[in-house]
Amino acid sequence: MSNPTAAMLVIGDEILSGRTRDANMYYLAGELSKHGVDLKEVRVVSDDADAIVAAVLALSEAVDHVFTSGGIGPTHDDITADCIARAFGVGIDVRADARAILEAHYATTGTELNAARLRMARIPDGATLIDNPVSRAPGFTVKNVHVMAGVPSVFQAMVASVLATISGGQPLLSQTLRVDRGEGEIAAPLSALAEAYADLSIGCYPFQVNGAYGANVVIRGTDGARVDAAVTELAKALAL
Amino acid sequence: MSNPTAAMLVIGDEILSGRTRDANMYYLAGELSKHGVDLKEVRVVSDDADAIVAAVLALSEAVDHVFTSGGIGPTHDDITADCIARAFGVGIDVRADARAILEAHYATTGTELNAARLRMARIPDGATLIDNPVSRAPGFTVKNVHVMAGVPSVFQAMVASVLATISGGQPLLSQTLRVDRGEGEIAAPLSALAEAYADLSIGCYPFQVNGAYGANVVIRGTDGARVDAAVTELAKALAL
Repeated sequence: MSNPTAAMLVIGDEILSGRTRDANMYYLAGELSKHGVDLKEVRVVSDDADAIVAAVLALSEAVDHVFTSGGIGPTHDDITADCIARAFGVGIDVRADARAILEAHYATTGTELNAARLRMARIPDGATLIDNPVSRAPGFTVKNVHVMAGVPSVFQAMVASVLATISGGQPLLSQTLRVDRGEGEIAAPLSALAEAYADLSIGCYPFQVNGAYGANVVIRGTDGARVDAAVTELAKALAL
Repeated sequence: MSNPTAAMLVIGDEILSGRTRDANMYYLAGELSKHGVDLKEVRVVSDDADAIVAAVLALSEAVDHVFTSGGIGPTHDDITADCIARAFGVGIDVRADARAILEAHYATTGTELNAARLRMARIPDGATLIDNPVSRAPGFTVKNVHVMAGVPSVFQAMVASVLATISGGQPLLSQTLRVDRGEGEIAAPLSALAEAYADLSIGCYPFQVNGAYGANVVIRGTDGARVDAAVTELAKALAL
């Protein structure tokens, strides 16, 4: 059985303009690896409704789970929920349970649940809410698309909420062999290894330290014994 | 005249598996902003030929310039050059000028130009080489696709080589107003501002420090006087 597949959609002008360095992609990639879900693709699009709708539909068809990040707050540039409703052709309105969550939260802080904040209770029809233990305003899941906040602390809490509900596969195991030779020196034995272990993913990532070339060879797979065998064979082939 | 548009394609299992945090996207986004090129989309795909070919074609049709990162080294997992040739239906082979660059480089370091290293001189037919002042092995441009290395120092040098050859537009100017109130408090005046200044991009990015909510309002545009006017108007509306 192969692992379930996933894609991520990052929504936000602030990433594409170079203002903000995305943190959620790196976090989600690591969590999915541990959970045995294969992240196949990430897309970053701007706060543009047509671009969001097209990306949601393309990714939703291509993989088992889509995780989106960004655009579900109370301000005018938060258009993700409406785009999700449009993508799947469903209605969207303030929902009682989402509203109740916000009411309870703002009651404790003495904050008014004004029209802007109430926007965060607008949920596409048929969605399931995603718990937000950090700042309460919920995310939601429509079909196979999990819609989450962009603020990293909230995003991370929502990822935990979602991963608790989906079946993962076998975690991807990984071993790294550091080789203090240039990539060009080890390419031939690496290529032979990749052929012999076609069930594993074998990547070679070069680096340069103090003028000397080296490479990290990363061997990944779900079968720990196979990963071990490949690492041992490579070390022998390179006479390490 | 609107600015030229761009997209980025990051190629690499190491990003999607959570092993490596991408640095090139953030770098390129900042450089393109300064150069007056609008980055519309980023995609990250794995070292999978079909995925790479499909993404290259989709992005190449959608924008003026595509920048790729990763997969042009000497090892078996470096398949980007072949994918680009396949995407555009052109041949690929070792090219004399690219080979000469490698020969000259390896002669100075006393390194053998073996079969693996020679792979880095395989260039799709009709391409233009991209200068690599860091480690010599060149990138290349086919049609509107600029193919560059994934190692950040090399990627950055190649971006400089490419940007020197393409006409930018008007740099995107940006001003940030920090507001120590929750997003929900300022959403209404922000929305009115966004309507009055539809030519600008107005984003609201919440944060939480020591339990207090705040937001950075970022106002972006190519016309500095308009950006100034919007910032002034917002500060007045919020009585800052």
